[in-house]
Amino acid sequence: MRAVDLIRKKRDSGEHSREEIDFLISGYTRGEIPDYQMSAWLMATWLRGLSAAEIAGLTEAMLHSGEVISFPELPGKKVDKHSTGGVGDKTSLILAPIVAAGGLNVPMISGRGLGHTGGTLDKLEAIPGFNTALSLAEFRRVLRECGMGLIGQTAEIAPADKKIYALRDVTSTVENIGLICASIMSKKLAEGIDALVLDVKTGSGAFMQKEEDAVRLAELMVETARRMGKKAVALITDMDQPLGRFAGHSHEVMESIEVLRGRGAADLRELSIELSARMFYLGERTKSVGEGRVLAEKLLASGEALAKFKQGIALQGGDARVVDDYNVLPQAQHHKEVRGTSNGFLAATNCMEFGNALARLGGGREKKEDKIDPAVGLEFHKRIGDRVTAGETLVTIYYNSDSKLAEAAELIANSFVLCEQQSRPKKLVRRLIGA
Amino acid sequence: MRAVDLIRKKRDSGEHSREEIDFLISGYTRGEIPDYQMSAWLMATWLRGLSAAEIAGLTEAMLHSGEVISFPELPGKKVDKHSTGGVGDKTSLILAPIVAAGGLNVPMISGRGLGHTGGTLDKLEAIPGFNTALSLAEFRRVLRECGMGLIGQTAEIAPADKKIYALRDVTSTVENIGLICASIMSKKLAEGIDALVLDVKTGSGAFMQKEEDAVRLAELMVETARRMGKKAVALITDMDQPLGRFAGHSHEVMESIEVLRGRGAADLRELSIELSARMFYLGERTKSVGEGRVLAEKLLASGEALAKFKQGIALQGGDARVVDDYNVLPQAQHHKEVRGTSNGFLAATNCMEFGNALARLGGGREKKEDKIDPAVGLEFHKRIGDRVTAGETLVTIYYNSDSKLAEAAELIANSFVLCEQQSRPKKLVRRLIGA
Repeated sequence: MRAVDLIRKKRDSGEHSREEIDFLISGYTRGEIPDYQMSAWLMATWLRGLSAAEIAGLTEAMLHSGEVISFPELPGKKVDKHSTGGVGDKTSLILAPIVAAGGLNVPMISGRGLGHTGGTLDKLEAIPGFNTALSLAEFRRVLRECGMGLIGQTAEIAPADKKIYALRDVTSTVENIGLICASIMSKKLAEGIDALVLDVKTGSGAFMQKEEDAVRLAELMVETARRMGKKAVALITDMDQPLGRFAGHSHEVMESIEVLRGRGAADLRELSIELSARMFYLGERTKSVGEGRVLAEKLLASGEALAKFKQGIALQGGDARVVDDYNVLPQAQHHKEVRGTSNGFLAATNCMEFGNALARLGGGREKKEDKIDPAVGLEFHKRIGDRVTAGETLVTIYYNSDSKLAEAAELIANSFVLCEQQSRPKKLVRRLIGA
Repeated sequence: MRAVDLIRKKRDSGEHSREEIDFLISGYTRGEIPDYQMSAWLMATWLRGLSAAEIAGLTEAMLHSGEVISFPELPGKKVDKHSTGGVGDKTSLILAPIVAAGGLNVPMISGRGLGHTGGTLDKLEAIPGFNTALSLAEFRRVLRECGMGLIGQTAEIAPADKKIYALRDVTSTVENIGLICASIMSKKLAEGIDALVLDVKTGSGAFMQKEEDAVRLAELMVETARRMGKKAVALITDMDQPLGRFAGHSHEVMESIEVLRGRGAADLRELSIELSARMFYLGERTKSVGEGRVLAEKLLASGEALAKFKQGIALQGGDARVVDDYNVLPQAQHHKEVRGTSNGFLAATNCMEFGNALARLGGGREKKEDKIDPAVGLEFHKRIGDRVTAGETLVTIYYNSDSKLAEAAELIANSFVLCEQQSRPKKLVRRLIGA
């Protein structure tokens, strides 16, 4: 078998056998197939597509390029959630403690923010001392002690994905649902989980702006998980506006703790409970999704979820006082209001630009090497459907340096669309795939 | 400007500006753009195509990646011919001396054989001592002395093409007419010529098997040459069967000398005269193509063309006795007949397989590093339209080693298609483009 022939086959719209995919992925991981052949294959694949069988094969080949964790020592089921990313999406920080408090295990391997999106690891690292780079042995110990663990992709987990993702990033071969599906699923299935709940974002702040693209990706991921013997369900959820009231690392930790205290923004609370309920049901902790919702509400009301978060923070080296004292978190020195300039109803937002504005302020990455300022943030005062009057505050910007403030404020101001007639916001959970 | 954005643009069917193409080609030549980005761009280009303006821009960028030769010291016009390659195509060895004997200059930079095709450089190197690796200074001296020079691509000529061609070869991005056109034309225009005659082969022994593909490539090359201020014309010529009676390096040198002596195969003589006549006309040596034919015939009949070839061989270090004594050339030790097994008329050949069979015998390359045995060859006894009786010789194989003989003989035997009815062979020159 030769890489050049497999590139030609995909270029000519052929379908790869399982052996061909294994040859490509294992050869590339071992360094026997050079970057320039893999990138030609990736471009051919981007343009010609992958069949469902090829995507499953690619996922499995990438999964087996590294270690597949298993947790025979953990008594309960292992479940996880993955989100395709958006602005203000902090549900992992809320549902992991809820589900762990409910008796399931949540071995969560997360990513970092890139572009306009935030990343779970970056948010957790706003908590002083929190270590997301645990070894696998430490990860096991934390999981055994508290049922939840939140770490980054280690060198052992799906090294093929790590290498291929870096190449896709510099060869304009990122946005292909087959490649995205295999990348996500190979990492998630390496966690040794029994079930996976997928939160596929759609709207102006999502990678999949069109709902039909989000649905196709969701279907592919659910099918791929099932082909590999895992339970899976996907929720298509709204990202036409930020999730919750805050974006920014310290602010999102605070808002997550607020929800764990039974307070916080209604949409964030609703989605966190919904995703937790799906995890309870797929993890066979409850007999129905409805029972799962009731359980999640109970664990929030009793304080058990908050206590679990506190325990998890401490076990991963973080300053657990944060749950009682937000001053533990890095705080921005200044704030500035972005105000409305006319009257009307908020009809839409260009949500991705909020993420970009946050990144300009230092609260996101433009390149992988960039350092994040966890203190900067945005507070959103209006939601779609709300009345806005001229002079009213739309967004509060929390910032440390003046240098990019004007640019960020302008981006934000230009990202609100007002309308004379009040529109109804779309449902938060738009569709359910695979239930 | 960033390479990743230009890859995306081509991936999304965009048209590059001249500046964008220059950025890509000069960046890649200097090593600032890595192989893996160029190969992704090449695949996107293979699948999305290039406009005529992009092809002209690419040709010019590749041309100017190295030195563009000029010959202010040479009195007459400089003309050349390029063939897209086939089996038994040795016209360069015949027309270069004809045209130089006629008073024009032929500064010919040629290639080597690859796959089923032969290469002019390899054929000349069958002549003991013949040096195709002249420096540019030596090339000038030879041209000044005899009006013709035949060398290979030097490091100074179109280094971008050299680097890109090597990458295309291993990433399945060879067969795209835009990339082929730019590759050929950047090298040919670097020769400092005034006019170029293109021999675009079509049929079972050509890279462009379909005539419509050959025509499109011919049109592109003629247009590209003209955009760059050069006269050009293309002949679409038949490669449904080998050109002439012989394939193989020593054999093709012998057959070329036969034609220069006024003998040799009719089709080879006809095409050599036709191409020479087009060169005379474009080089303003004659007032019409018809006059050019008459001049070429005259130079053959008078022995002037043969004397020019002898002079050229000597000037490039070759053993010039070859024109009088073929024993100077490497000779194969054995020969074997491939015979017909039934009666009928020869209707078609799978001409590419003859080239592949020759390569198996050692007379061609499968990889660039392979060494060639110039002594092995094939002699074709039948042409399309000829009557064949069972037991009659179709091909004589001249070989040195038994090891691949059976395989080659079988390939050859299976490449003749007989028919009960006699078919008329197609015309040798099928079409003329750009006249």
